Amino acid sequence: MNDFTFVTPTKIYFGKNAEDKLAEVLNEFGFKRVFLLHGCGSIKKIGLYDKIIKILKSGFVYEEVSGVRANPEIGLVREALAKAKVFKPDVILAVGGGSVLDTAKSIAAGYYYDGDPFDFNLKKVVCKKSLPVGSILTISAAGSELSDSCVIQNDELHIKQGFNSDHNRPVFTIENPELTFSVSSYQTAAGVSDIMMHSLERYFGESGPYQLSDEWALDLVRSTMEAGLAALKDPRDYEARAAIMLNSSLSHNGLTGLGKAAPFVVHPLEHALSGYHADITHGAGIALIYPAWAAHVYKKDVKKFAHLTKRVFDKEGANDEETAIIGIRLMKEFFHSIGMPTSFKEVGITKEDLPNLVSLATGNGTRTVGRYPQPLEKEDVEAIFASLLD
Amino acid sequence: MNDFTFVTPTKIYFGKNAEDKLAEVLNEFGFKRVFLLHGCGSIKKIGLYDKIIKILKSGFVYEEVSGVRANPEIGLVREALAKAKVFKPDVILAVGGGSVLDTAKSIAAGYYYDGDPFDFNLKKVVCKKSLPVGSILTISAAGSELSDSCVIQNDELHIKQGFNSDHNRPVFTIENPELTFSVSSYQTAAGVSDIMMHSLERYFGESGPYQLSDEWALDLVRSTMEAGLAALKDPRDYEARAAIMLNSSLSHNGLTGLGKAAPFVVHPLEHALSGYHADITHGAGIALIYPAWAAHVYKKDVKKFAHLTKRVFDKEGANDEETAIIGIRLMKEFFHSIGMPTSFKEVGITKEDLPNLVSLATGNGTRTVGRYPQPLEKEDVEAIFASLLD
Repeated sequence: MNDFTFVTPTKIYFGKNAEDKLAEVLNEFGFKRVFLLHGCGSIKKIGLYDKIIKILKSGFVYEEVSGVRANPEIGLVREALAKAKVFKPDVILAVGGGSVLDTAKSIAAGYYYDGDPFDFNLKKVVCKKSLPVGSILTISAAGSELSDSCVIQNDELHIKQGFNSDHNRPVFTIENPELTFSVSSYQTAAGVSDIMMHSLERYFGESGPYQLSDEWALDLVRSTMEAGLAALKDPRDYEARAAIMLNSSLSHNGLTGLGKAAPFVVHPLEHALSGYHADITHGAGIALIYPAWAAHVYKKDVKKFAHLTKRVFDKEGANDEETAIIGIRLMKEFFHSIGMPTSFKEVGITKEDLPNLVSLATGNGTRTVGRYPQPLEKEDVEAIFASLLD
Repeated sequence: MNDFTFVTPTKIYFGKNAEDKLAEVLNEFGFKRVFLLHGCGSIKKIGLYDKIIKILKSGFVYEEVSGVRANPEIGLVREALAKAKVFKPDVILAVGGGSVLDTAKSIAAGYYYDGDPFDFNLKKVVCKKSLPVGSILTISAAGSELSDSCVIQNDELHIKQGFNSDHNRPVFTIENPELTFSVSSYQTAAGVSDIMMHSLERYFGESGPYQLSDEWALDLVRSTMEAGLAALKDPRDYEARAAIMLNSSLSHNGLTGLGKAAPFVVHPLEHALSGYHADITHGAGIALIYPAWAAHVYKKDVKKFAHLTKRVFDKEGANDEETAIIGIRLMKEFFHSIGMPTSFKEVGITKEDLPNLVSLATGNGTRTVGRYPQPLEKEDVEAIFASLLD
């Protein structure tokens, strides 16, 4: 067991019509001035926007910024931050999914800092203080509602980069699974992939004996796959949507990697992809890269890959290597079955893009990626990406 | 999935020499006035007391109360509370195990209340505000370092009774597994039993589909059993002690029962025992009662008992009922193998004590116990206790 410090302070209000409690929740925290942040209109379609505005008008003061896009961009953060510094909110209320939450976190961190908010992502400066952030989730995926991470895209620099800080952890999240009934099959599948990967990335790190978090990670992966298939079959399956939503929150707050170090590897590879092609959905990029990464590295730790196969798929080959390979194949088949891409062709990436992608992932060849089972060198990244051209 | 509200805000500082960070931790929270609470001398033997006093003298103001016993009594709470109201602390620092922590919580809740602190336990009044509590753990068991519960003994009333409130959740816990190297085999085994039961009690409640918390509970039970056996073999096995310590914290903060309702049943039965015979170690009482309870009720939900057998013991019988029975037997054998009692005789309870015990457990026959797989009537409690006379 590694030494660690851990805190996951976010209060979760979970269940049917949980958003009706918004006034109660804000009052519980003593928040009066609310900076409302949302995306590109979907919360209006499901009637959530009107509900929230009615509550906010009933006893709070609010300012509003909308238009947060997928792969959220630093430009909007800068605009919203200027507004927030004038409005002086008690809390930023993010209504939406990971993009809105990460934008809220970026504004919250920038609020007490005089420089550019992307400095945190560029690791030029460390976040010491942040405005409180709360959320009402409308999509299950990012896990940002409990996580310490904040990933922002910089279109100008062609970089998608995150930074981690306990100051990034929201103070509350309101989770009503019914609000995700209208999420499309594609977005649901991408969400499921991302949720799975948040725990898989943590599983694939050096473990000590009795590593409870490894088993918790695999349970979460399995439960998310089962619930994902059910939600794709019936988008209004409450139990399935509820499991996906709760798993999303528990997959990225650190619990499934507690007591071990597991620097992410598939995520940074994917960030190169969606940083370069902002129209690639993050979860789809994740589902695309995982099997290619696994096939490239599994020989370095067949036991760990084999254990995954047994626990997640109840399957076993003649030996650990065979068992490991079965798991990688079944995972790829799962992603394919839920409509995720399995080759670069499907997302419009060609051989000509490869040098740029490799350069983005490796900081122009100046850094390795991840650490487990060994850091990926430039050549490894090239090989993984090249295998996706077929 | 049930609707729920959940928060587990306690910040965990985990690892070798974690207690050396005490000044840093107190400063991080802005705590200057510290009300130090500890037990009956064991922290002096391991040199921890001197370390803490040195740190407190280096920049804090402190008041001190010691002498907290096992099955902590309301009398000491009242005395300490009077002192605390004069001293006006920023935080109560509990150094020890569950008894010291629960005493600290009782003082913390009583601090903002004019009546008697046992009123919370008697459910006469609801806790609305509490002083912050922090801890340095010296024994792994109670899980009180993250939990919302506070169990106090009242010798006069012959009652051991808990109350639950999010205000009971400590703000920080400092966990150094090395501090538990000197915990005796008996106390280690009792701790392991209690940790297991905190998750088993949560497992045995009605579950929905994709009930992730059920799998997390069983993983935790299994990992605690494995680490427990290793720690009993070699008390200085750091990895084993670390796993037990972390599992202790994660077993009783609510995570292993998230999204379901599972009112405890073995715990209240045990509270009748140790409330009547204050010299019975809580964990030993737990280990004693679980197999008797399981044997009495398993037929009402053989599937759930069978699933436990498969996941915890990798064993399976010809059918679910057989599998369930195997698991109950193996669990009893496990408790016996680590030196826990398996009959009332071993803890000095005789046939003559039975009416009193049943009366205590059922509030003089006025209430049932637990809810799963069905509430225990007076006759059930009698039968369970009677089966332990053999």
